[in-house]
Amino acid sequence: MITTNCPLPFTDSDCVLLAHGGGGRLTHELISGIFYPAFRNPLLEQDHDGCVFPVEARRMACSTDSFVVDPIFFPGGDIGDLAVNGTVNDLACCGARPLYLTAGFILEEGLPLSDLRRIVGSMKAAAERAGVQIVAGDTKVVERGKCDKLFINTSGIGVVREGVRISPDRAQPGDVVICSGPIGPHGITILSARESLGFETNLKSDTVSLNNMIAGLLDSIEDVHVLRDPTRGGVSGTLNEIAQAAGVEIILDEASLPIPDAVRGASEILGLDPLYVANEGLVLAILPEEKADKALAIMRNCPEGKGAAIIGHIAMKGKPLVKMKTLYGNYRIVDMLSGEQLPRIC
Amino acid sequence: MITTNCPLPFTDSDCVLLAHGGGGRLTHELISGIFYPAFRNPLLEQDHDGCVFPVEARRMACSTDSFVVDPIFFPGGDIGDLAVNGTVNDLACCGARPLYLTAGFILEEGLPLSDLRRIVGSMKAAAERAGVQIVAGDTKVVERGKCDKLFINTSGIGVVREGVRISPDRAQPGDVVICSGPIGPHGITILSARESLGFETNLKSDTVSLNNMIAGLLDSIEDVHVLRDPTRGGVSGTLNEIAQAAGVEIILDEASLPIPDAVRGASEILGLDPLYVANEGLVLAILPEEKADKALAIMRNCPEGKGAAIIGHIAMKGKPLVKMKTLYGNYRIVDMLSGEQLPRIC
Repeated sequence: MITTNCPLPFTDSDCVLLAHGGGGRLTHELISGIFYPAFRNPLLEQDHDGCVFPVEARRMACSTDSFVVDPIFFPGGDIGDLAVNGTVNDLACCGARPLYLTAGFILEEGLPLSDLRRIVGSMKAAAERAGVQIVAGDTKVVERGKCDKLFINTSGIGVVREGVRISPDRAQPGDVVICSGPIGPHGITILSARESLGFETNLKSDTVSLNNMIAGLLDSIEDVHVLRDPTRGGVSGTLNEIAQAAGVEIILDEASLPIPDAVRGASEILGLDPLYVANEGLVLAILPEEKADKALAIMRNCPEGKGAAIIGHIAMKGKPLVKMKTLYGNYRIVDMLSGEQLPRIC
Repeated sequence: MITTNCPLPFTDSDCVLLAHGGGGRLTHELISGIFYPAFRNPLLEQDHDGCVFPVEARRMACSTDSFVVDPIFFPGGDIGDLAVNGTVNDLACCGARPLYLTAGFILEEGLPLSDLRRIVGSMKAAAERAGVQIVAGDTKVVERGKCDKLFINTSGIGVVREGVRISPDRAQPGDVVICSGPIGPHGITILSARESLGFETNLKSDTVSLNNMIAGLLDSIEDVHVLRDPTRGGVSGTLNEIAQAAGVEIILDEASLPIPDAVRGASEILGLDPLYVANEGLVLAILPEEKADKALAIMRNCPEGKGAAIIGHIAMKGKPLVKMKTLYGNYRIVDMLSGEQLPRIC
């Protein structure tokens, strides 16, 4: 494992080698051969320990997310676009216009470079769709068996427009909960993509950047109170967090939940509740009921929001709680999951 | 691996469980029990997908770094303070005053929570010393054997003061290279801490935040041209990058290199060249020779710079090259390492 300046035993030059993480010539080859061609921009090309950028805003937002999804390729996407979309969406849900991302790679020795190239290509495409730039990066390589193919951290910076104040504690009686699209496809897709489960569907992940749709929403509606993307923990986990933060009771209407038949069927077989399944292209918007029609029209006008629907409302201040009016007209409590429904979903 | 809302088999509640990464109640317990008590601040407590913060600067800097050091505890530090200091130093080397960090944790199922607490405590202490706040975070858990204890990504944001322009391509003839302290202790310490090597020294890692010393330097000296912390790739790798960026020849003076005897001895036994060994508390400052005395005085006035010394100079524009005048008066080329001298050093 210890070498000085002599050549390394490169038996397989098409895979990631430990030496790719050493800060030497091979690290530079990886950066100049794979990362730079994909992400090239003047900020990244400062070629420094970090990136200096001009600022005109009065308020900004930052966010971070690590991605460990298994498998790294799945119907509808891969760990690369998931990583870009995930952080873009977190920033957008803060009411920010995402500008810059950083990308930190942890690579397992032996990862085929062709896989890395494909993933970096997905990141490039996702960044272009979202209108963000990847401005700084880092690569580490660990020995075979010390991580699982690759993990990606993306952190992001965005500009918050004047007047916007999005926060989970702003949910209030009189607000409705709008869900931008079908619930559950990402989680069920990942599950079915794990070979060991021998389970097949025609579903694909909903991973997509939501910042353009959200920008349209904020352009037209001043009093959007809460925006959240229900990833890990699903719609239930996210709404429980909002109920806690705002001290409100949220009531879901089961009849209005946009759960595709394929998700419903797979969930039943697997013993899952779709409300706890992770989504990667979904936003929950909480805003005054009188603005709901306008919001729905704006969202349905975007491909990523064409299935938008009102799924519930904020009932009252008091004991934080999420309840659901079932198809049979009674109510059940939709609790936060205590454990892990599906590990490594993102 | 698939559970719904029923209790999980918590046989060992003192270890990280997969469920700690699920976005449910246990994730919240981890955040509220370990991360929040350590990192608490109003920005973090926005409790959102990201963090919104006010901006007064005209230029900012961002940086990212993933930490995979093995072992996670070593003499002089652990992966926690290393992760904070590393990103703080990258920002400082951009000429920025670091303000905010994000922290992304990838935890291996079974990691003792006591280890996580200790590491988070180190991060808290390091953040306090550096004067930065951890304002957003993320936690993922992967199955036993799918990472190695824990990996930490820190990304950071800082404010660049007016007039400062630090960039590797600004190194120019007439500049000297100042090294802020002893070369090599971090890399050799990590090596000796790996039990399998059965190698002992009294060295400890030099991991420390350099932003306060660097701020002092920039307060008093306008024309600092380059600042870089020679981590992976060591002093040689960093100077080769600078030589390439600026198109200059850099000449080191072997007699002036601050290499402690313990580093020199260990390097000889292990067949390492100290110039390629990673440092975590060192900065190379390149500035005009006539400012060198002032710079040395400022640096030596700080504990982290008390061993500061001039180790070389920029000789000429032209073929990018790092040469060293040896103890015997002849010259040898100090090339960039092609491979990996020591994996997982940070």
